Amino acid sequence: MTRDDCLALDLDDPFARKRDFFALPDGLIYLDGNSLGALPKGVAARVGRAVEEEWGADLITSWNKHGWFTLPGRLGDRIGSLIGAQPGTVVVADTISVNLFKLVAAALQLRPGRRVILSDTGNFPTDLYIAEGVLGMTGGHELKLVAPEAVEAAIDETVALVMLTEVDYATGRRHDMKSITAKAHAAGALMLWDLAHSAGAIPVDLVGADADFAVGCTYKYLNGGPGAPAFLYVRKDLQDAIVSPLSGWWGHAKPFAFSTGYQPAIGITRQQCGTQAMLSMIALDAALDAYNGVCMQSLYAKGQALARVFIDEVERRCSSYSLELAGPRDPARRGSQVSFRCPEGYAVMQALIAHGVVGDFRAPDKIRFGLTPLYTRFVDAFDAAVIIERVMAERLWDDPRFKARSAVT
Amino acid sequence: MTRDDCLALDLDDPFARKRDFFALPDGLIYLDGNSLGALPKGVAARVGRAVEEEWGADLITSWNKHGWFTLPGRLGDRIGSLIGAQPGTVVVADTISVNLFKLVAAALQLRPGRRVILSDTGNFPTDLYIAEGVLGMTGGHELKLVAPEAVEAAIDETVALVMLTEVDYATGRRHDMKSITAKAHAAGALMLWDLAHSAGAIPVDLVGADADFAVGCTYKYLNGGPGAPAFLYVRKDLQDAIVSPLSGWWGHAKPFAFSTGYQPAIGITRQQCGTQAMLSMIALDAALDAYNGVCMQSLYAKGQALARVFIDEVERRCSSYSLELAGPRDPARRGSQVSFRCPEGYAVMQALIAHGVVGDFRAPDKIRFGLTPLYTRFVDAFDAAVIIERVMAERLWDDPRFKARSAVT
Repeated sequence: MTRDDCLALDLDDPFARKRDFFALPDGLIYLDGNSLGALPKGVAARVGRAVEEEWGADLITSWNKHGWFTLPGRLGDRIGSLIGAQPGTVVVADTISVNLFKLVAAALQLRPGRRVILSDTGNFPTDLYIAEGVLGMTGGHELKLVAPEAVEAAIDETVALVMLTEVDYATGRRHDMKSITAKAHAAGALMLWDLAHSAGAIPVDLVGADADFAVGCTYKYLNGGPGAPAFLYVRKDLQDAIVSPLSGWWGHAKPFAFSTGYQPAIGITRQQCGTQAMLSMIALDAALDAYNGVCMQSLYAKGQALARVFIDEVERRCSSYSLELAGPRDPARRGSQVSFRCPEGYAVMQALIAHGVVGDFRAPDKIRFGLTPLYTRFVDAFDAAVIIERVMAERLWDDPRFKARSAVT
Repeated sequence: MTRDDCLALDLDDPFARKRDFFALPDGLIYLDGNSLGALPKGVAARVGRAVEEEWGADLITSWNKHGWFTLPGRLGDRIGSLIGAQPGTVVVADTISVNLFKLVAAALQLRPGRRVILSDTGNFPTDLYIAEGVLGMTGGHELKLVAPEAVEAAIDETVALVMLTEVDYATGRRHDMKSITAKAHAAGALMLWDLAHSAGAIPVDLVGADADFAVGCTYKYLNGGPGAPAFLYVRKDLQDAIVSPLSGWWGHAKPFAFSTGYQPAIGITRQQCGTQAMLSMIALDAALDAYNGVCMQSLYAKGQALARVFIDEVERRCSSYSLELAGPRDPARRGSQVSFRCPEGYAVMQALIAHGVVGDFRAPDKIRFGLTPLYTRFVDAFDAAVIIERVMAERLWDDPRFKARSAVT
């Protein structure tokens, strides 16, 4: 593979024009869209209108006039179409952590007498922390953690809920959603999937997998902006069987009746809680336009092809340095990111950023590269590998300014 | 009182120049800043920069470079200075509903063996719904509701937590924070104040009142924008004694260590949960500039003077129509809003909006006017009363298009 081969692949790329939707800085190879998606160009104007025309001029009437109040459900449906969910089964609200709390608590309501929440050590930590928080309130339950490959064998009839992140945030390893869900259901357990590193990157079929619950992130592959609100999914037939413990007024059947007793709305709406951050929601609405007309299977194929180029080039160039692929080599078992174990990973990543390749570091030792197929080019994957080689070969990372840790990495 | 008298009061108003901070539409009398505060002019440019320069150009590095990660605490301190809280005791996060869940659950942890959460029927409904949600998880507790004037007498040694909104959203009635808090403490109960209709409108002294917990809203008097994130306060000496059940990674002692077990951060930080909606937070940061140099006692005095003009003029002009002051006449017992009971209130408010006076309607029968002293002029209060008179005298509300209810009122 040569750089010219990559340029040729870019010419053939059916998503090539999608890159123009994004305001990417010149000369930067941005491989961190799995942490914060790039800015879609349409967002600035849309948010500007929301501030000046909606908030500024139309003021309170905008809740109706500009559809603010119904935006969480409309955004949910837009995202639902990317993850195999029917209309009315996804809503955008709060954060993943808060949404997990709602759904973990719901699962325990639905499986009284079952003691265990099962997860794995590759889950994103906040998922585990939130399960701890739920268990601290209910008492009598336990959170059981096993290695990712041991999950299926650990599902038994003590398990109320299996709670997993489909794509491992650190390594990119991908669980088999359909198989694990079937195993959970066979044991009478419920299944919750965290799609933080899936939605917008790989094809997800929540209905096909028969998932009960899901949560996900909109600021990674969906490019909703920093801290953009999260989404949650509840299978249609479970929606009215559960009540959120976060029973706020936005989930009430008649929020503007101002009654003193809680009466949950029908359907997914009851999973809403409080008034939502509209400027961030509106940015997400504009950002999702980038997915108009996108076939997730084709996008996924491009992501996997990008990863192949990147892994091959890094391994070919860096075989004599301490870099080892983390996570599976088999593309079918990986999401849209590639990580390498690297003992000096923190400093290496700082050096890469200083040399124009932005990925991120995940403790204790992984450098992580998000290959976001909407805007990453084959030539970016190639050039990034060249710069990684240079950083390793010239030990550019061995510099005090790259070793000083900052608050957020 | 004549219109010229009001113009003279405006000339003498020490806050007159603050109105220039806000982008208020010409010809509109906006008396709904207690629902959605007006747009501070600086917000559009600040949010524009956040979108294009921070998100767009600096991308993931903005979490450090532009201080996104520390913004919740810095905003908390800015708001803390307006509500009598010390630095490090307020954080901006999530929604009021979510924050209430955290703190109600915390209170029950701190008072094991006490059965009752005491609130009043004038509390904002979501506060009561959230208490229900907590109780549904803990079991064995009860939510006891009494009339607002009966709260003090109902505090006894069964009460774990007294949970009240200082200023009634519907009537403007104001509780005596200091006296009720003292009564709660004397009985060994904890005290939580909802400052949704207080913060930025009236002087609040959380430390002076010895409050244990507080929550509040930033999109009303603080003008943070639609659905801007909420704040919460925890008294310094209680902060490390409680753990949030919403134990998300932003409240972890070392969020970027990615450990599988939850270890709460020290201080108010542990009340954070998930990644926050930054564009909405940044809008709030810009909006709070309007409070630079503001003395809350002086602002309150202006608010009360505005209310006096408004009530006097409405009552003088509308004595023969069905309009009756809701809530106390005594300014010391009222927040910065004025409501009237009006049997045809919904249609009356729609007619007022059509004639350039924006307030809102609160079921079943109240028309509500927020007198936001940063940008409401005396002449606005006067002119609003004149238009109210006209709507009532000419029965302008008696029109089918004003009687059709919309989703959000």
